[in-house]
Amino acid sequence: MDSTLASKPIINVAAICGSTRKASFHHGLIRAAIELATQAIDGMSIVNVDISLLPMLNTDLEVDDKFPPEVEAFRQKILQSECFLFASPEYNYTVTAPLKNAIDWASRPPNVFADKGAAIVSAGGGFGGGLAQYSLRQNGVFLDLHFINKPEFFLKAFEGPPKFDDEGNLIDTEAKESLKSVLLALKAFTLRLRGK
Amino acid sequence: MDSTLASKPIINVAAICGSTRKASFHHGLIRAAIELATQAIDGMSIVNVDISLLPMLNTDLEVDDKFPPEVEAFRQKILQSECFLFASPEYNYTVTAPLKNAIDWASRPPNVFADKGAAIVSAGGGFGGGLAQYSLRQNGVFLDLHFINKPEFFLKAFEGPPKFDDEGNLIDTEAKESLKSVLLALKAFTLRLRGK
Amino acid sequence: MDSTLASKPIINVAAICGSTRKASFHHGLIRAAIELATQAIDGMSIVNVDISLLPMLNTDLEVDDKFPPEVEAFRQKILQSECFLFASPEYNYTVTAPLKNAIDWASRPPNVFADKGAAIVSAGGGFGGGLAQYSLRQNGVFLDLHFINKPEFFLKAFEGPPKFDDEGNLIDTEAKESLKSVLLALKAFTLRLRGK
Amino acid sequence: MDSTLASKPIINVAAICGSTRKASFHHGLIRAAIELATQAIDGMSIVNVDISLLPMLNTDLEVDDKFPPEVEAFRQKILQSECFLFASPEYNYTVTAPLKNAIDWASRPPNVFADKGAAIVSAGGGFGGGLAQYSLRQNGVFLDLHFINKPEFFLKAFEGPPKFDDEGNLIDTEAKESLKSVLLALKAFTLRLRGK
Repeated sequence: MDSTLASKPIINVAAICGSTRKASFHHGLIRAAIELATQAIDGMSIVNVDISLLPMLNTDLEVDDKFPPEVEAFRQKILQSECFLFASPEYNYTVTAPLKNAIDWASRPPNVFADKGAAIVSAGGGFGGGLAQYSLRQNGVFLDLHFINKPEFFLKAFEGPPKFDDEGNLIDTEAKESLKSVLLALKAFTLRLRGK
Repeated sequence: MDSTLASKPIINVAAICGSTRKASFHHGLIRAAIELATQAIDGMSIVNVDISLLPMLNTDLEVDDKFPPEVEAFRQKILQSECFLFASPEYNYTVTAPLKNAIDWASRPPNVFADKGAAIVSAGGGFGGGLAQYSLRQNGVFLDLHFINKPEFFLKAFEGPPKFDDEGNLIDTEAKESLKSVLLALKAFTLRLRGK
Repeated sequence: MDSTLASKPIINVAAICGSTRKASFHHGLIRAAIELATQAIDGMSIVNVDISLLPMLNTDLEVDDKFPPEVEAFRQKILQSECFLFASPEYNYTVTAPLKNAIDWASRPPNVFADKGAAIVSAGGGFGGGLAQYSLRQNGVFLDLHFINKPEFFLKAFEGPPKFDDEGNLIDTEAKESLKSVLLALKAFTLRLRGK
Repeated sequence: MDSTLASKPIINVAAICGSTRKASFHHGLIRAAIELATQAIDGMSIVNVDISLLPMLNTDLEVDDKFPPEVEAFRQKILQSECFLFASPEYNYTVTAPLKNAIDWASRPPNVFADKGAAIVSAGGGFGGGLAQYSLRQNGVFLDLHFINKPEFFLKAFEGPPKFDDEGNLIDTEAKESLKSVLLALKAFTLRLRGK
């Protein structure tokens, strides 16, 4: 093995967006995370995994122990990732239906999330998505995800100067720094979970 | 107004099933509840409201302040009901994606659940769906639903003698009695919330 | 019965403060609530119930089916109240130990909270105590408390102009208005729960 | 360094019991865990840390940046432990007041729980303490504890053959095996968190 590569283990992160709206702030958070990982973080690669085309969970759709093709493709991407970045709005104090749907498909045996690291970011009014995050953490116990505890990232999207431009791109410098801290913590925790 | 009717105020209950599986125990619980209301409870009418055809929530689908037709029809049924009976399995310690989806559509302004009574029943392994129920109660704060506190109904579906037959019909006498107690508590609380 | 009294049913509210610190904002919230009830709300009387002298819960202290005297006195006050106003800081994302202690003593059979109305207010950094409130609502299911859902009151104590003076008195006009709305909602819900 | 010791890294575990009752099942669970660690698990030492004498949390008791002596002694024991075994009954769907009190004292800056591993076990009726566990996990986010996700240990204390003898000692073989699995998972996760 090339010794240069060996000294820079790449962490493959799957980013999952709980919103299916085009202009969602959460897509903006993921785009910003991908940019940060590319430009400012060594050894971390983030890929957005689209969940908007998954059928609504119904285990009757599993025929002969096979998942529908979109589900199978999604599950493969989760399986091949070492850790996860969830970006989810909060609807009615928990995560959105599309995100819950993706989670439930991924958890069907064998649970492809099992024993991996994760982080959550959100933006919004109120608590900035905080209650959705705690609900997702409860999902994570069953999913056997290991979430970083700190820093927590709840962006108050509607307070103070605009945090996003008209196309939903994150433009707030302080928020970008916070997001970078989340990614660095996810990287460090993922490496620690490797036991190396 | 007919004085006979006046003395028997009918409570219209919308039952919502969190599972889209045909043989789901939760459809069985709702069928049993409908039968109990018809045969053994005075003044309560329960109608199952199908949520399986709702599109996945995406507010981009709201055009010119109009909801997609299936969503509009669903919202009308919720609006016309005085209280709710939720029957939901627990996936990954919270409610299912189809139920979350229905809830999120109903909560779009104006929130058609607002200020109404509700009860939750579930069946399953582990806690019998208990964690999903507590998550749904947290949703209910935002939705402004008034849940009955007691009795709680968590059916341990896989312990002891079979609770359901092969077609998912509730056959356990004790469980039927418990379900009836839930319905009577929902009736009493709904009348109390009327302030009459 | 005196017809004047009949037209002004008095609602007796027990206020319970989760903090035992002298200068706690939460004592300030309760003092403000008492003042509002006296001066600006018809038919509502709020009394602070001190919980700081309760012994730490240990059911070994219940001898011959009797509670320790401080516990018995506290339970009597809860029993004689029609509804409750909780004011609690958030420590580690749930309510404080003194509040949990009071709740646990009150819940010992017979549960003196049973079937009564309640509201929660809090102040703090972060979510302004929000997570403590959701945890307390979960306690409330077992306690059989009926919490108002709206308005929710989470005072961001450290943002913007000072909300409290040096002695912990609430001085922010907007916050006082919000607090008054909580009290009015508690009054209305309590009357509704009377079924009158 | 002695090479024998180097090959057997000792993990120091602090066990914390949420009940102050003498005959509590939870003391029994901790005694069983201590015995298992001594007799059947290599490299793990569990010490019970008594929390029953801690004063009720009141930050007014912190004078000149010093904690009361009992608190200081408790905090030192937490600080010197590498991970934690919580055994807590469930009161009103969350952990007990004595446990919350200990947690809150330990979390006072500097938080002596920070960045360490943990596991939770409980026994009881209903969900066997499950809801208390999920509440404690929420505390753990703020405390920066890393809980093992699996196996979860909820002992249904009142179902089937007796699980404890009259003195509160765990006598059920299957439960002991489950408890051992928890300890082994805690050991493995703690070593992994060391990054070695």
